[in-house]
Amino acid sequence: MQQDEQLHKIRHSLAHIMAAAIQKLHPNARFGVGPVIENGFYYDISDKHSFTSEDFKKIEKEMRTIIGQKLNFERQTMPIDEAIEFFKGQSQDFKVELLQDLKNKGTTSIKDSGDELVDTKAGKVEEVSLYKTGDFIDLCRGPHVENTTEIPKEGFKLTKISGAYWRGNENNPQMQRIYGVAFDSKDELDEYLRLLEEAEKRDHRKLGQELDLFVFSDLVGSGLPMFTPRGTILRDLLNEFSQSLRLRGGFEKVWVPHLAKTDLYKASGHWDKFGDELFLVKSQESNDEFALKPMNCPHHQQIYASRPRSYRDLPIKYLETTTIYRDEKKGELLGLSRVRSATQDDSHVFCTPDQVHEVLGMLVEITKEFYDALGMSFRARLSLRDDSDGYLGDKKLWETSENTLRDIVSQKGLDYFEEKGEAAFYGPKIDFITKDSLGRQHQVATAQLDFVQPGRFELTYTDNDGSEKTPVMIHFASLGSIERFMSVYIEHCGGAFPMWLAPEQARIVPVSEKFNDYANELKEHLAKSGLRVNVDNASESLGKRIRNSELMKVPYTLVVGEKEQSAREVAVRKYGQGDLGSKPMDKLALELAEEANLKTSK
Amino acid sequence: MQQDEQLHKIRHSLAHIMAAAIQKLHPNARFGVGPVIENGFYYDISDKHSFTSEDFKKIEKEMRTIIGQKLNFERQTMPIDEAIEFFKGQSQDFKVELLQDLKNKGTTSIKDSGDELVDTKAGKVEEVSLYKTGDFIDLCRGPHVENTTEIPKEGFKLTKISGAYWRGNENNPQMQRIYGVAFDSKDELDEYLRLLEEAEKRDHRKLGQELDLFVFSDLVGSGLPMFTPRGTILRDLLNEFSQSLRLRGGFEKVWVPHLAKTDLYKASGHWDKFGDELFLVKSQESNDEFALKPMNCPHHQQIYASRPRSYRDLPIKYLETTTIYRDEKKGELLGLSRVRSATQDDSHVFCTPDQVHEVLGMLVEITKEFYDALGMSFRARLSLRDDSDGYLGDKKLWETSENTLRDIVSQKGLDYFEEKGEAAFYGPKIDFITKDSLGRQHQVATAQLDFVQPGRFELTYTDNDGSEKTPVMIHFASLGSIERFMSVYIEHCGGAFPMWLAPEQARIVPVSEKFNDYANELKEHLAKSGLRVNVDNASESLGKRIRNSELMKVPYTLVVGEKEQSAREVAVRKYGQGDLGSKPMDKLALELAEEANLKTSK
Repeated sequence: MQQDEQLHKIRHSLAHIMAAAIQKLHPNARFGVGPVIENGFYYDISDKHSFTSEDFKKIEKEMRTIIGQKLNFERQTMPIDEAIEFFKGQSQDFKVELLQDLKNKGTTSIKDSGDELVDTKAGKVEEVSLYKTGDFIDLCRGPHVENTTEIPKEGFKLTKISGAYWRGNENNPQMQRIYGVAFDSKDELDEYLRLLEEAEKRDHRKLGQELDLFVFSDLVGSGLPMFTPRGTILRDLLNEFSQSLRLRGGFEKVWVPHLAKTDLYKASGHWDKFGDELFLVKSQESNDEFALKPMNCPHHQQIYASRPRSYRDLPIKYLETTTIYRDEKKGELLGLSRVRSATQDDSHVFCTPDQVHEVLGMLVEITKEFYDALGMSFRARLSLRDDSDGYLGDKKLWETSENTLRDIVSQKGLDYFEEKGEAAFYGPKIDFITKDSLGRQHQVATAQLDFVQPGRFELTYTDNDGSEKTPVMIHFASLGSIERFMSVYIEHCGGAFPMWLAPEQARIVPVSEKFNDYANELKEHLAKSGLRVNVDNASESLGKRIRNSELMKVPYTLVVGEKEQSAREVAVRKYGQGDLGSKPMDKLALELAEEANLKTSK
Repeated sequence: MQQDEQLHKIRHSLAHIMAAAIQKLHPNARFGVGPVIENGFYYDISDKHSFTSEDFKKIEKEMRTIIGQKLNFERQTMPIDEAIEFFKGQSQDFKVELLQDLKNKGTTSIKDSGDELVDTKAGKVEEVSLYKTGDFIDLCRGPHVENTTEIPKEGFKLTKISGAYWRGNENNPQMQRIYGVAFDSKDELDEYLRLLEEAEKRDHRKLGQELDLFVFSDLVGSGLPMFTPRGTILRDLLNEFSQSLRLRGGFEKVWVPHLAKTDLYKASGHWDKFGDELFLVKSQESNDEFALKPMNCPHHQQIYASRPRSYRDLPIKYLETTTIYRDEKKGELLGLSRVRSATQDDSHVFCTPDQVHEVLGMLVEITKEFYDALGMSFRARLSLRDDSDGYLGDKKLWETSENTLRDIVSQKGLDYFEEKGEAAFYGPKIDFITKDSLGRQHQVATAQLDFVQPGRFELTYTDNDGSEKTPVMIHFASLGSIERFMSVYIEHCGGAFPMWLAPEQARIVPVSEKFNDYANELKEHLAKSGLRVNVDNASESLGKRIRNSELMKVPYTLVVGEKEQSAREVAVRKYGQGDLGSKPMDKLALELAEEANLKTSK
């Protein structure tokens, strides 16, 4: 995410000001590095005092005092030896260490923030720059605001503390990292904090547990989610919708196993590229060397290759929802966002070069329909080649194809942008980037041209002149990884799924045991209309049971008691709207079924 | 399959008679072993002459001559040293070797046929029995017919030759194994040969290729079938039917990944029992040790264990169609019958002991409905414990449960039999054994009680008195392995699937290009009724295209030309019935859709 230059300066200056404030409050504090990060800044501090969020108010107040002093950020340069002596005098030994590294090696070797620190000349550092604000002087490359008056006093906030090893090395001393966020105005800060709070409430890991959608087990392993009945309904419905659009477009389902001999990936080229991401499988009964499949295209190509194909058969369109396995680093696994088992709604089209336009047009239509129904806007990114080497396939074909992609996205009226260098080595692609209800962007669907793999597997078709030709291949997925998509979608709607996707569409709550029969009759009646309905007749108070239904974000809570039973009615509560009054049973069944059949985002 | 005792004697005697005939025709032939096998017998022969099926007529003729001589099978005993000398004198060195082994080790160590050879007394062999028929004398334990008049002259036939290493060891000399089949009468032989021929025609590997249902690839690996679009339709429809019956019965779908840490199988007990059948999976990014799942129950138990459960929640019924992986011996892999990747329509019920009866009753009903629709009769086998050790779980619970099973199968009017010793170590079960159209039996569906695993994973529910109890678990599958079931079912119906399962339900064949538009219109019309229809407008003759449709066993071939177009009709051919005359398009669509919606076996 690109930051506005002035905002970047403000954030960088706030890091200094926070350090200055801490120095005032804790004169013996020693400082590490203090870079700008997304939405704000941090500074690493070493001090006897253990900072907690209780300290934030005091530090913020001191920061505002400093800002109020209308201080200039004064840049000065200093020969490196002189700077070392200066920081030694201040007992800032971390700064001294950085300077000595700069002097001896020409670099501080600190990732993330190294380039913020000093003005280096490649290989040799003779002079460094310092910034002075009031009586606080820091080693820094800049740039900063000219004067603290440029900093909105109410546009920042300290947010959290974490431990961090000096220079990210666990053999080094541990420091205290204090984070802040900063924006151009209080309004923007407030909006950011609101979204942050909302995002926490919507965290899919939290909702996954609360709404009983998926679970992990230590015995099964990390990064390997299992889906409960409720989560499986959501999973299946999303997948069925994605499949239905492609089946309508003439795709045919196929099925392949979840492993293959490593030979398959050696032939496809994936072995060289992704070899260390593969889960290797050992046969105890034979010498076969297998890997869990990290993608499905090589298998699908084997099905294509199993018969002679004619131009009359093309385009051949396979689809399969199937799980791939990638050996992700354990530290990077995160809920459903980053998993080892990813189920893809994958598809592969084999076609002639002439058919690319029509096929891609259809795929764009499918994507539009899919994301419209889910209420998620998207932009298309044309991922094109750049001038570097490493792209395979005929250059002319690339050029035509890139033009075709451009044609299609503009014809279809998509909001799109181009990005050179984002193409796959085997062909250009259209990536679809959605925006969720909190404004966060996620790359989801993708349509990729492939000029390379069909040749590697010697796939051919007989053209109408009798010659053997190589088909073009198109990789396409609407959801991408169902697990990752679910992490996005659960947060997008905060777990309050629209009727057609809700695992439990209505919950019937009888006022007391006496109305269990009527509750069950109502359940049967609604179930006959295809609705997913439960009865909650647990031995808990009516209020508690209504509240439980709300907590599970069930779209409709249906209360039945004496009055309802005798009138054959139902007291209807809708999630997010509250009491809707009473409705006759038949009318309700009709209305709910109608709503459930509509693929909308509400 | 148990053989009638007299038929067994006939087959055994025919093995001798075949050897005698061969000795007459090839006096230097040396003989190995000649046991009875299913449906017949074989003999292993070593001779300079290379036997082919061309020799069968001559050998059979000689055999009939021997039978016609009304010879007795005369048993005599002989001290073992004398026997060795006797066979040395006959240059029957294989027999000599067997006798020497018997003398020295007390056994011949030949599997399959060893026990046919000699009358051994454990540990010490002093005397062996020989059988004399005419001038042919063989080392043999017997029994045989008294006289060759008991053997139906026209009830046997030599069928094939294969190579076989002496004693099954590839370091030993190779022998020629000649097979014969034999029955009580010519009629029975003819019926057997007809079924054999039919079975060959119906071989699912052959039909799988011809009907384009599934493929194998050397790059993917043996025992790992991939399903083409047509095969996937069949697969999915069978599975959907199986699922629909369980969903109706309150089962809920869940989803689990295809691997787990080996810890899971160590906890479940499967590691000790099936450790060497597991595919082991190596993570390159972590120290996790995984295995591909060889069954689904431990995963499903983890989902059960993820929340506290109350007696009010039970029975909890999970279903999942998912693939398990077993490292079968490569030599035993066979088409879809024996695979490394088996997709199970698996389900697990967790219930109180009191609920077992009702749940099992439902599972039996589901199985009945399923196999009735497929037109396959079945018997139920009550697989009970015997008196041996090795059964786990409360004895009282076993007894009650076995009675419950008995109750259910008789209540439901099933054709059933009991077999002691066939229970799993964790509980008794009902196995369902179908009979296919060729009379062959296959074990398919199964419902198994499990008193052990829930305890191992410490699964509990809170009973209505507040105490924590262990649920009973029931494993159930209708299809079992979809792959194996397909191998059975494809052969059962010879690839001529009933309308509701046919991957392609109708194929439209326009008389010439001029009628392509009408053909496509008809296709759209039928597709709107949910039918799976293609148009074949390849540049081949009309006759060829109609024949192609028949070869693919498409239920309906629809021919359209001038006459049909102008009358908006279709000339209908039905597979196996031929020309049905012309029908109006609308009427046809209605009739076909109606037929397609009926789950019948025709």
